[in-house]
Amino acid sequence: MLLKINRESPKPVYKQIIEEIKALIDHDAIGIDQPLPSTRILAKKLGVNRTTVVRAYEELQALGYLQSRPGSYNRVQKRRKEAEYSPERKSLIPWEKAANNASRELYELFLRYSPERPVGSKFNDKALNISQLDPDPRLYPLAEFRRCLRHVIKVHGPESLEYGTYKGYLPLRRLIARRLRLHGISVSEEEMLITNGAQQAIDLVIRLFADRTKKVAVEAPTYANVLPLIQFNGQKVVSIPMREDGMDLNTLERVLAREKVSFLYTIPNFQNPTGITTSHQHRERLLNICSKHKIPIVEDGFEEDMKYFGKVPLPIKSIDDKNIVIYLGTFSKALFPGLRIGWVTAHRECIERMTAIKRFSDLTSGNLVQMVLHDFLKRGYYDLHLKRLHRIFRSRMQLALRTMEDCFPQTVQWTRPSGGYTIWVTMPRKFSEAELHGFLSRYGVTVSPGSYYFPRTRTSACFRISIARIDEAEIKEGISRLGRALHKLR
Amino acid sequence: MLLKINRESPKPVYKQIIEEIKALIDHDAIGIDQPLPSTRILAKKLGVNRTTVVRAYEELQALGYLQSRPGSYNRVQKRRKEAEYSPERKSLIPWEKAANNASRELYELFLRYSPERPVGSKFNDKALNISQLDPDPRLYPLAEFRRCLRHVIKVHGPESLEYGTYKGYLPLRRLIARRLRLHGISVSEEEMLITNGAQQAIDLVIRLFADRTKKVAVEAPTYANVLPLIQFNGQKVVSIPMREDGMDLNTLERVLAREKVSFLYTIPNFQNPTGITTSHQHRERLLNICSKHKIPIVEDGFEEDMKYFGKVPLPIKSIDDKNIVIYLGTFSKALFPGLRIGWVTAHRECIERMTAIKRFSDLTSGNLVQMVLHDFLKRGYYDLHLKRLHRIFRSRMQLALRTMEDCFPQTVQWTRPSGGYTIWVTMPRKFSEAELHGFLSRYGVTVSPGSYYFPRTRTSACFRISIARIDEAEIKEGISRLGRALHKLR
Repeated sequence: MLLKINRESPKPVYKQIIEEIKALIDHDAIGIDQPLPSTRILAKKLGVNRTTVVRAYEELQALGYLQSRPGSYNRVQKRRKEAEYSPERKSLIPWEKAANNASRELYELFLRYSPERPVGSKFNDKALNISQLDPDPRLYPLAEFRRCLRHVIKVHGPESLEYGTYKGYLPLRRLIARRLRLHGISVSEEEMLITNGAQQAIDLVIRLFADRTKKVAVEAPTYANVLPLIQFNGQKVVSIPMREDGMDLNTLERVLAREKVSFLYTIPNFQNPTGITTSHQHRERLLNICSKHKIPIVEDGFEEDMKYFGKVPLPIKSIDDKNIVIYLGTFSKALFPGLRIGWVTAHRECIERMTAIKRFSDLTSGNLVQMVLHDFLKRGYYDLHLKRLHRIFRSRMQLALRTMEDCFPQTVQWTRPSGGYTIWVTMPRKFSEAELHGFLSRYGVTVSPGSYYFPRTRTSACFRISIARIDEAEIKEGISRLGRALHKLR
Repeated sequence: MLLKINRESPKPVYKQIIEEIKALIDHDAIGIDQPLPSTRILAKKLGVNRTTVVRAYEELQALGYLQSRPGSYNRVQKRRKEAEYSPERKSLIPWEKAANNASRELYELFLRYSPERPVGSKFNDKALNISQLDPDPRLYPLAEFRRCLRHVIKVHGPESLEYGTYKGYLPLRRLIARRLRLHGISVSEEEMLITNGAQQAIDLVIRLFADRTKKVAVEAPTYANVLPLIQFNGQKVVSIPMREDGMDLNTLERVLAREKVSFLYTIPNFQNPTGITTSHQHRERLLNICSKHKIPIVEDGFEEDMKYFGKVPLPIKSIDDKNIVIYLGTFSKALFPGLRIGWVTAHRECIERMTAIKRFSDLTSGNLVQMVLHDFLKRGYYDLHLKRLHRIFRSRMQLALRTMEDCFPQTVQWTRPSGGYTIWVTMPRKFSEAELHGFLSRYGVTVSPGSYYFPRTRTSACFRISIARIDEAEIKEGISRLGRALHKLR
C-alpha cells in the first residue's frame, strides 16, 4: 500500500492517511474484505507515531470504510449505501384498516391540506406566498442566539444534554412567569408547563378533557390545526361564529345552555385567521358566561408579544379571579419556531394533570434548547428583538392595509388588525380551495383558503393573508397581484 | 444623577452606565416613574458617544428597569417580581372531575411513581442510586458536540431555527436509515419518522391503533412507561410472561387465538427491565406467530447500539419480509437524552399515518437539534463514542455480575445480560414498593422496584438495577451494599 504523506502540509498527518486510504478504497485499489497493514507496521513504514495511524483507522471505521468487529478490525468493508424507497414494498398488514377511525380521518385531513406551511405542497413555486404565519427568518437575532448557545454549553456542560424535569427547565418557567406580569398575569413557576410549541399545549388540554359525551366550543373561523386534533381525540366541535368584535357571545350563551361543553377555545388577540382583537368588555362578558357555566376557557395567546400598535386589552387570564382560564403561549411566532418551545399556565391542579400526560407521552422537552432560550431571555435579547420586530411590523402592517385600500375592489372586505400578522379577506362569492388556488396562482400569488379554518367545509368566501414572512417590497407586489386577481372576480 | 465612569477599566462604558444606574434604582436613589436624563444630555455630561447611552438604556429597558412605552421611554418602572405560588389559590373548576377518566387514572400513576428517574422523588438522597437508565453524563462527548453545534449554526444559519418538515430533517432520516443497515434493516428515509425520543414514537403507535374493543399484548414485566400510556389511550393490556429466553410464545399463541389484539410490543435486546435477549429462533417464531394473525409487532430497539459483548441476533425487523414490524429507536440511551431525538420506521403506509398524528400533535420536532445530531453522526463521532462506551460497559457489566456472584446470597437469582444496562434480580419473597425502598435505604442503596414493570401490581419479588450511570467504584459499592441487605432478607 503506497501512501503519499506530506509533512510540510498544514493538513494533519492522520487526515492525510485517511484521505489516501479512502481514495484507494473508492478506486478499488484495495478490495472488500482485504486487510490493511497493522497500525504498528504502517506507522513504522510512514515514520509516524502509531497513535496517528490508530486515529486514522478509527475514523475510517466510523466512516464505514473499515469493519469494526474485533478480529476483522482492519478489513475493508462494503460501504453501506442508502436503501431506495420502493413503492412496490407490500405489507401483510392493511394499515388503513388497522388504524382506528380517528387516525383514518386525521390522515385524510393531513393529505388534504397543510394550512400553515406549504411543505411539499401543491403550491405554485413561482407564486409569491403571502399565506405563511412563520416569522421572517431574515429577522432572526442569530448572533445573540449563538452567544447564548456557547455560554450554556460552557457553563452547564453535560447537564444541558441530560433529561430535564417534567414541567420544564425551572429557571425558564420562572422567567416566563415573570414576563407574564407585563401582561397582567400573575402566576408562579409551579403553575407553568413547558411544551413542544403551543401545539403540544393544545394537544395536552384536549387529551385532559376529551369526552365523547361533550363538545369543544371554538370560534368559526379558528386556528386550522386545532380542528382536526379535537376530532382525532374523539370530541365534537360546536362553532361560535366570529363577528367584527369577536365571537358572538349571544350564540355562546345559547350553546352553553343547550350543549355539554368540555372547554372553550379562543384567541382574543389578532385572532387566527381573522386578525380580530376583542375589547376588554367582550373579555369580561366571555369570562362571566363561562364562569356561570363552569366551563374552562383555553386562551391562546400565541401572538401576545406582537402588540406593535399598543392599545390592546390585557389577556382574559389577567382578570381570571376564579382561575378557570388555561392560558398558552409560544416563542414560535416572534422568535424561533425551530426550537419548539411553548408553554401553558393554569391553576396548579390543572397543570399537574397536563404534566402527567406530557410525562407519559414524551417524557420531557429538550433541555438544551430550554436552557439557551432562558439565557436569551435573561440577557434581555428577546425584549430588544421584540422592539425591533414591533418597528418593522408596524410599518409592514400599515403598508399592507394601505396597499389593500389602493388595489382591492370595493366589493371586497377585510379586517384591520391591531397587531400580529394575519388579515382576513371576504370576497363577494364563495370558492373551493382548488378553485381559489387555481385562480390566484394565475396571478402569481398564494393565500390561505378560508375553508381551512372552518370545520367540515370545503368552500368559503374568505381567505387569510399573512405578512409574517414577507418584506415591504413583497407585501406591495403580493397585494397588488392579489388586487388584480380580485378585480377579475366580478 | 452622578455616575462614576472609568475609561481605563476593561469593562465597556455602556456596561458601567448600566451598573451605575441599576445601583441607583435598586437603592431608591431614583424613584419609580422618575425620568432619566435624555440620552443626548447624559452623553454630553459623561463625554461619551450618544449611541453608548442608547445601548445602556435599551438594556436597562430589557432588564425591566425602564419603561418601554413611547412617551415614557426613559422613566424608571417598578420591577416585576416573581409571583409566589399560593396553595390557597382556589379555582371554580373542579379539575379532578373535569378531567376525563383516563386522565384521572394517569395522574394517579404519575403521582405513584417515577420509575426511570427519581426527579423530585421520595428517594433517600444519600443512598447510592443504582436504578437509573439514563446514560452516564461523565461519558458525554461534549467537545465533539460543541464542534457540531458551531458548524451547524455557521453553515445553516436561520434555517436551523425554522420549522422543519413533518417527518424530520431529511439528511438525518437518511443517515439513520443507512446506519440501520449495520443491523440488517433495509429502509429508506421515506419510511422513517423522527420523534421526540422513543417515548413519542410509542405514543404515536398507540394513538394510531387505540381501539376499545382490542388489547395491546406486552411482555410482563415490560418498560414501565408504556403501561400507563396504553391505558390512557383507552386500551387494555394483555400480558405475556417473560421466561428466561424471552416472552412465552406458547402463551402468546393461545392469547392471539382468543383475544382481539391491536399490536404486540416487544423489546428483544437487553429487555427493559429484565436484560434478557432473545435468540434468532425465538425472533423467527415470534414473527411467524404474528404474521399468522396479522398482528403488527412494535419492536423497541432502544439499546440496539449497546451490543458490547457481540453475538446478539439481528432485530426482528431485519427478517420482516412481510413488513409487519414497526421498529423504533432512540439516541437517549447511548448519547444525549436531552436532545429528545428518537425515530420509528415501518411500512410507508404506517409511517405516513403516524406522521399525520405527529403533525397535529406538535407540528414538528426541533430542527436545530436534528441538524446538529446529523452532523455528529456524519462526522463519525457517534461511532467513535459507541466504541468507547462498549469498552467501558463491557467492563462495568462484567464487574457488576462478578460482584453479584461474590456478594449475593444463594437464594437470590439474577439475569446475565449480553449487553445494555439493566439486570433483573429475583428475591425469595415479595415486597411492596414502600417496603423495598424502606428496607434498602437503610443499607444506603436505591433500586427500581419490580412492581413498576407489571400492570396493576403493587408487590413483586423482583427489582431492576442499572449500571448506566454509575462507574466501577460505584458499582462495587452499590452492589456490596445491596448484597448486605439481601443477606438480611432471610
